[in-house]
Amino acid sequence: MNASFPTPGADATQRLLSHEELEAALRDIGARRYHNLHPFHRLLHDGKLSKDQVRAWALNRYYYQAMIPVKDAAVLARLPDASLRRIWRQRIVDHDGDHEGDGGIERWLKLAEGVGFARDYVLSTKGILSATRFSVDAYVHFVSERSLLEAIASSLTEMFSPTIISERVAGMLKNYDFITKETLAYFDKRLTQAPRDADFALDYVKHHATTPELQRAAMDALTFKCNVLWTQLDALYFAYVAPGLVPPDAWQPGEGLA
Amino acid sequence: MNASFPTPGADATQRLLSHEELEAALRDIGARRYHNLHPFHRLLHDGKLSKDQVRAWALNRYYYQAMIPVKDAAVLARLPDASLRRIWRQRIVDHDGDHEGDGGIERWLKLAEGVGFARDYVLSTKGILSATRFSVDAYVHFVSERSLLEAIASSLTEMFSPTIISERVAGMLKNYDFITKETLAYFDKRLTQAPRDADFALDYVKHHATTPELQRAAMDALTFKCNVLWTQLDALYFAYVAPGLVPPDAWQPGEGLA
Repeated sequence: MNASFPTPGADATQRLLSHEELEAALRDIGARRYHNLHPFHRLLHDGKLSKDQVRAWALNRYYYQAMIPVKDAAVLARLPDASLRRIWRQRIVDHDGDHEGDGGIERWLKLAEGVGFARDYVLSTKGILSATRFSVDAYVHFVSERSLLEAIASSLTEMFSPTIISERVAGMLKNYDFITKETLAYFDKRLTQAPRDADFALDYVKHHATTPELQRAAMDALTFKCNVLWTQLDALYFAYVAPGLVPPDAWQPGEGLA
Repeated sequence: MNASFPTPGADATQRLLSHEELEAALRDIGARRYHNLHPFHRLLHDGKLSKDQVRAWALNRYYYQAMIPVKDAAVLARLPDASLRRIWRQRIVDHDGDHEGDGGIERWLKLAEGVGFARDYVLSTKGILSATRFSVDAYVHFVSERSLLEAIASSLTEMFSPTIISERVAGMLKNYDFITKETLAYFDKRLTQAPRDADFALDYVKHHATTPELQRAAMDALTFKCNVLWTQLDALYFAYVAPGLVPPDAWQPGEGLA
C-alpha cells in the first residue's frame, strides 16, 4: 500500500553493486537513519530522562517486542523450504521462549515491571501510543505484503543493534538508579542473537538481490524499517518529552503501576 | 493485529443501548477525540501557522485523501449485496471523479498546488511523514481485517466533519492571504457528501450492532479512526511546529515547490 519510499543515494543503484558494495550501502543507511541517532535515545542513554519518560519508552517498546514473533511467523509462512524455515524459526523461539517465563517478550515484561509497571497493564497494550501501534503493525504488514527479499531485508536493522545495545545498557546502568542489570537482561541475549540473525539475512539479501532494482528494493526495505523505529521515538518524544502532548487514552504518568 | 483498543466509557456498554443512546455515545467519542480538538488544527484555523506549516499539512493530508478510495474499495469488496454496494461505491466516485481532473483527490491536489507545491512532488508522496503513511495504512488494513460492522463504523468520523470543515474554511480564508476560495474547493463538496455518507453508515451501525459487545466494537472502531486522524496531527506538530524535528527524508521547507 506504500505508494513510494524515500530513495537515499538512489544513484548507488545505477549499476549492480558487488556484495561488498551492497553491504556498505546497507550499513550506510543505518549510519544515517538508525534510531540510535534519534534525540530520544540520546536522552535515554545519557540519563537525561525522568523515570516516567523511561517508563513510557518501556511500555511502548513492549508492543514492538510482542509483535516481533508475529512478524517472524509471517515471514516463516512465506519461506519456500525447510532449510530456510529451520533457520528463521529460531527467531520465534528466541522471543517466545521454550516454556512459560522464558523468551525475549518475557524479558521485556521483566524490564517493564522493573521500572514499576503492573504486568497486566503492559500486556493489555492499552496505554501505548497509537503511533506505536501503527508503526509496528506497518512492519508486520510490510513483511506479509512485500516480496520475500524485502521482508528479509527489512530485518537488517539487527546489523546495527549491537552498538545501540551496548550504549544503552552501559548508559542506563550508569545513569538511572532504578535500572538494574537484571532489568536489562533482555539485551544480554540480543547481543548474541541479533548478529547471528543479521548474518543470515545479509547473506540472503546479497545472494537474492541480483539486479540493481532488487538491490534498490532491499535498501528501501531497510530504510522503511529504520523509519518504523524512528517514528516510534518521534511519538515518544512528542508525547513525553516536548511539547509533551499525550494523545487521548495514551499512558499518563501514575497509571498502570504495580 | 491490534491487540486491544482503548475503551472510553466502557461502562456505557454494560447493557444494550437504544439507537438514540448509541448515537449519543458515538457523538460523545467525537466530542472528546475528533481532531478538531488537536492543537495543530487550532493553530491552522486561527491563522497561527506559517505558509510552510500549512504546506506540510496539505502535503501529508494528500496521502490520506489519496488512500480513501482504496479504503472504500476494500469495504466495497466486503459488502454482501448490490443494494449496499450501489450506495458505498458513490464514495469512490466522489474521490476518484468521473473523468481526468475531477474528484476529491484532484481537488486536494489543487489545494496542494494552491499553497505552492509541484503536482508531481505531491503525487510521489516522497516527502510525507512515515507517521502519516503508517496511520493511513493502518486505516486501510483495519477495514480489510476487522468485521464489516467495524469497517463501516470507522467511517463515522464523517458525522463530525461538517463542523471542522466550516471552521477550517472560514478560518483559513480569513487568516491566510495565500489561501483562496478555489484552493479550498475540496471542502465545499464534502459539506454535502460527508453527511450523506455518515447518515447511511450511522443507520447501518444502529441496525447491525445488536448486542452490547457489537455496540462496543462499533464505538472502538470510531475511537480507532479518531486516533488515525489525531496521530497524523501529532506527527505534523512534532516535525513542523514543536520541537520541529523533521524525520529523515520528510519534506523540508523549500522542497517540492512549483
